[in-house]
Amino acid sequence: MDLQYALELIGTFVFSISGALAIQDKGHDLFGAGFTGFITAIGGGSLRDILLGAHPLVWIGNVDFLYAILAGILVTFVFFRFVSKLRKTLFLFDTLGIAFFTVLGVEKTLSLGFSVEVAAIMGMFSAVMGGVIRDTLTNEIPILFRKEIYASACLAGAIVYLIANHFGLERDINLLISISLIISIRLVAVKYKLSLPTLG
Amino acid sequence: MDLQYALELIGTFVFSISGALAIQDKGHDLFGAGFTGFITAIGGGSLRDILLGAHPLVWIGNVDFLYAILAGILVTFVFFRFVSKLRKTLFLFDTLGIAFFTVLGVEKTLSLGFSVEVAAIMGMFSAVMGGVIRDTLTNEIPILFRKEIYASACLAGAIVYLIANHFGLERDINLLISISLIISIRLVAVKYKLSLPTLG
Amino acid sequence: MDLQYALELIGTFVFSISGALAIQDKGHDLFGAGFTGFITAIGGGSLRDILLGAHPLVWIGNVDFLYAILAGILVTFVFFRFVSKLRKTLFLFDTLGIAFFTVLGVEKTLSLGFSVEVAAIMGMFSAVMGGVIRDTLTNEIPILFRKEIYASACLAGAIVYLIANHFGLERDINLLISISLIISIRLVAVKYKLSLPTLG
Repeated sequence: MDLQYALELIGTFVFSISGALAIQDKGHDLFGAGFTGFITAIGGGSLRDILLGAHPLVWIGNVDFLYAILAGILVTFVFFRFVSKLRKTLFLFDTLGIAFFTVLGVEKTLSLGFSVEVAAIMGMFSAVMGGVIRDTLTNEIPILFRKEIYASACLAGAIVYLIANHFGLERDINLLISISLIISIRLVAVKYKLSLPTLG
Repeated sequence: MDLQYALELIGTFVFSISGALAIQDKGHDLFGAGFTGFITAIGGGSLRDILLGAHPLVWIGNVDFLYAILAGILVTFVFFRFVSKLRKTLFLFDTLGIAFFTVLGVEKTLSLGFSVEVAAIMGMFSAVMGGVIRDTLTNEIPILFRKEIYASACLAGAIVYLIANHFGLERDINLLISISLIISIRLVAVKYKLSLPTLG
Repeated sequence: MDLQYALELIGTFVFSISGALAIQDKGHDLFGAGFTGFITAIGGGSLRDILLGAHPLVWIGNVDFLYAILAGILVTFVFFRFVSKLRKTLFLFDTLGIAFFTVLGVEKTLSLGFSVEVAAIMGMFSAVMGGVIRDTLTNEIPILFRKEIYASACLAGAIVYLIANHFGLERDINLLISISLIISIRLVAVKYKLSLPTLG
């Protein structure tokens, strides 16, 4: 099992926890919480692969991902009181998750032979669309449209990765730089409540 | 025309009626009601086949299903006053519908060579996602997240079917058992207002 | 570059403007507005191609469409005060857009060998589902379900195109007739506030 595979499994696991936790205040039952965790974890990558026509989807072709999701949901159920106090830790994990998924999505799209423009969009989609689908199903304003910089950090990281890649930067260094960039933008944006300007 | 095919057509017909009826209280026009009926009838199976990459989708490859949906919508329009009084009958049909679609979804997924874990999820998706998409479009809380046991009954039936199938139970008996199980769970849950525990 | 290609690019450009403008009253940031423009422009055609299994999707296989979208978003940003006063002009463009996309969707579906019934549905989907997805993400009642005749005009135009095509009407004349029909229905419906009857 290589490092990338391990990171993807961990990201899936963390996303399923954050998804299952997301509806705690709405009185949903255990099944609803599990379903939400599942959708959050698979949504972004599934949408990417459906748009690209890249079958089988990751979690359909490899059952390990389903067990990572199931583990995340069970952890949320069993340690709910504990986990729900870890919001800060979870926020960090979610930030790690979107950073890794962005770069994984970019690399997968490029490896399938698509253009860099499509790769940038798919990197961002991989990271954020699970949460968007979750928020849409639960009648929330999608996280994408809320004030704090979120998806735009992923898009920025994807573009930086693609530019550096174009100029031949070594992959390991490029991964480090673009993932760090996404994490930094997100952390700084939340800490200082930064947001992009509005149209009006 | 074999029995399974007939059941699928009937299920599609019934789902289109329940979908068209679902928005009656919102003052939607005939087109909106028809559209909702259509989405409810095709949503679950379409999502399953898109996720599996199984083209053509059932209703795209076989126009009979479109006419079954159209018939359901027309019946709703013409006999509206009558049909909307049949809520109890419709509830029974919907329950039959989700039970049949669950097992059909499981069998189709297995026949395409996917794992049992994926088959369980796709069985449930086939049955409930049409309603979930309908509810999302009409800004309702998806039926999945409401109190009464619904999708979890389908998941339970799918898992029982897969276990019995694994141990070599004859298909006809297995169909009978798992479909009856889904129907029973749903009927008992509604009658006694049973719901799963919540996280909080 | 032939005429059809030019029309498709212009339609995409216009849809991205109307999508980016759609959320102006909600205080969304620039990224949110751009994202909404993007979804509006690609949503209908993408859903059509995903349902048909027709990969690559138009904007994934041809980067020109991404630049048409980007141009629409930038125009909205730079000329916002000006563009938002052009609502009437934009309404006309949107009406042109749905008319062209309907016929393009019908023709693409037929050219892939699908039935006329499927082609009628896909024509309508191409035109309206981008807006429906946008409205769902932003928690609006989808345009489809609002009072004025909208998607039904597209469906009517698609059916007329298919009937005339069946009887061998020359393509250019057929295009002219069915596109004019959609535009006329829509303009008349909005001017006289016409709507279809409701079920109740």
